[in-house]
Amino acid sequence: MTGEFDLISTYFSPLAGPEGLGLIDDAACVPASSSEDFVITKDLLVENVHFRSQDPINLIAYKSLAVNISDCVAKGAKPYLYWLGLALPKDIKNDWMQQFSSGLSEAQAAFGCKLAGGDTTATSGPIVISITLMGKVPKGQMLKRAGAQVGEDVYVTGTLGDAALGLWCLKNEKPEASSLIAAYQKPSPPFIFAQALCGLATSSADVSDGLIADADHIARVSGVGMELPQNDLPISAETGSLLENEPSLWPKVWAGGDDYQTIFTAPIHLREKIMLLSKKLKTRVSMIGKVTRGQGVLLLDKRGQTVQVTARGYTHF
Amino acid sequence: MTGEFDLISTYFSPLAGPEGLGLIDDAACVPASSSEDFVITKDLLVENVHFRSQDPINLIAYKSLAVNISDCVAKGAKPYLYWLGLALPKDIKNDWMQQFSSGLSEAQAAFGCKLAGGDTTATSGPIVISITLMGKVPKGQMLKRAGAQVGEDVYVTGTLGDAALGLWCLKNEKPEASSLIAAYQKPSPPFIFAQALCGLATSSADVSDGLIADADHIARVSGVGMELPQNDLPISAETGSLLENEPSLWPKVWAGGDDYQTIFTAPIHLREKIMLLSKKLKTRVSMIGKVTRGQGVLLLDKRGQTVQVTARGYTHF
Repeated sequence: MTGEFDLISTYFSPLAGPEGLGLIDDAACVPASSSEDFVITKDLLVENVHFRSQDPINLIAYKSLAVNISDCVAKGAKPYLYWLGLALPKDIKNDWMQQFSSGLSEAQAAFGCKLAGGDTTATSGPIVISITLMGKVPKGQMLKRAGAQVGEDVYVTGTLGDAALGLWCLKNEKPEASSLIAAYQKPSPPFIFAQALCGLATSSADVSDGLIADADHIARVSGVGMELPQNDLPISAETGSLLENEPSLWPKVWAGGDDYQTIFTAPIHLREKIMLLSKKLKTRVSMIGKVTRGQGVLLLDKRGQTVQVTARGYTHF
Repeated sequence: MTGEFDLISTYFSPLAGPEGLGLIDDAACVPASSSEDFVITKDLLVENVHFRSQDPINLIAYKSLAVNISDCVAKGAKPYLYWLGLALPKDIKNDWMQQFSSGLSEAQAAFGCKLAGGDTTATSGPIVISITLMGKVPKGQMLKRAGAQVGEDVYVTGTLGDAALGLWCLKNEKPEASSLIAAYQKPSPPFIFAQALCGLATSSADVSDGLIADADHIARVSGVGMELPQNDLPISAETGSLLENEPSLWPKVWAGGDDYQTIFTAPIHLREKIMLLSKKLKTRVSMIGKVTRGQGVLLLDKRGQTVQVTARGYTHF
């Protein structure tokens, strides 16, 4: 197998209707009424791939919904309904279900959406959680991956690397890094802010595979390149101190994945507006680089030299 | 765990929005335009639960879509778009993908719908296929489980038990039963006929867990009972001859599941209309019993005595 993107373009794009947008985006756009489109996204989570068996059950549920919310809001859409597919061991306990539904309930309240249906089956293998999420967006306003223009600014919400380092801390038994572990177990997509980007951002996507990988998705379908100075990547204080002790972990910031922030591009004249919005909605937003001619996403060091990026982001196959 | 239905009512119904119809139906009903609703259904298929590892790959794909089509058309909706979630072994081969997408392509053509998105991830366990299907129905016309009235007729499309006996034949190495095996591997939901039941049927559901179990779902939420004479259950010639040699397999007809036919109820005055429709659309339809006062679904033998039904249908937990 040659990677998820080749797989999609070779085997699945020929099967797609126009609503699937060529399967080059994170979500489909389905016309509903004369004033509204539905934005529909689907993410699968597999035990010991996307979460650990020993993670708190309510947080596994919370994360399952949050990663779909991340896709939805990065498209400028307001979360509305979701469908839940669960493949569970035959001997699953009521207590597990209780904690799982309690985590879903908390996430629903946080993100303003409701359950609309689903399916539950038994499996002999790892738990699989499949969520399909429907959001609403004003007609024709869905934010897409394609649309970044040469000369525009590149932005990202929140901080990068916290979740990937949180997982590293869990694996390396450093439980004192509680805010990093929380970032891994309980993602906080920029729920309100990203929805407000409709009409401002020219392209947008969620950062789930890793910053460089997701920037690359935008650059590729927009037919542009990007230059991102490493120094401009926003990191939290906790990530900063961990990286001081363990500088070899720096690639987690741009390729660790699981950030569930939004990367977007916008024309220079909107800088002030975007920063005001960031202030008003209390959402950290950082300008992290420029859209350039050419192709590919370059990470630049202090001297403007290209940082060799080997791990660009998570790939399943 | 106390069964899938208890699980839904205890843990999931409290999370549902009004579009989820209390999660007592097979599908959600989402208002779209002023003239149309979207009907959305989700079915998960797990390797060695819903299909066998050794089944032809193109037919695994075909079946994955067909079982969702079955849910959709039993609600009177016209299939429109679907989302595909795939959890696959890391070492999955291009040849597997080729055959899988070819089976999807055949099913799309048969059922008139297109792919709109999805997600592909690696798993260490059995293959999991998660499909969310969206259909369209004229506003307010979705066929529901609730609605059966005392005195009405109960109907079912097609024949019963073929798929369950097909699986039995595969397990017992009787490859000569090719039409039964085909019923198991390549379901034929009553694609056009069920859509035509809008405005005629008072309740409707697909037969996937087994006739008695699915009749029971309708009876329970409609607040009625049903009496179904065993003699009136439609069986194919192949199933008839197999049952002559192996009468112990009779329960497969009413509890085997995997039929993907439609069970529905309608008032007596529509008998002629329904039979004309059956003829016109070349879809076998059988009247299999009556809606009665009380509760529960009774299977009756030739003398009108209740047949003791131990296995009522497939349950996962």
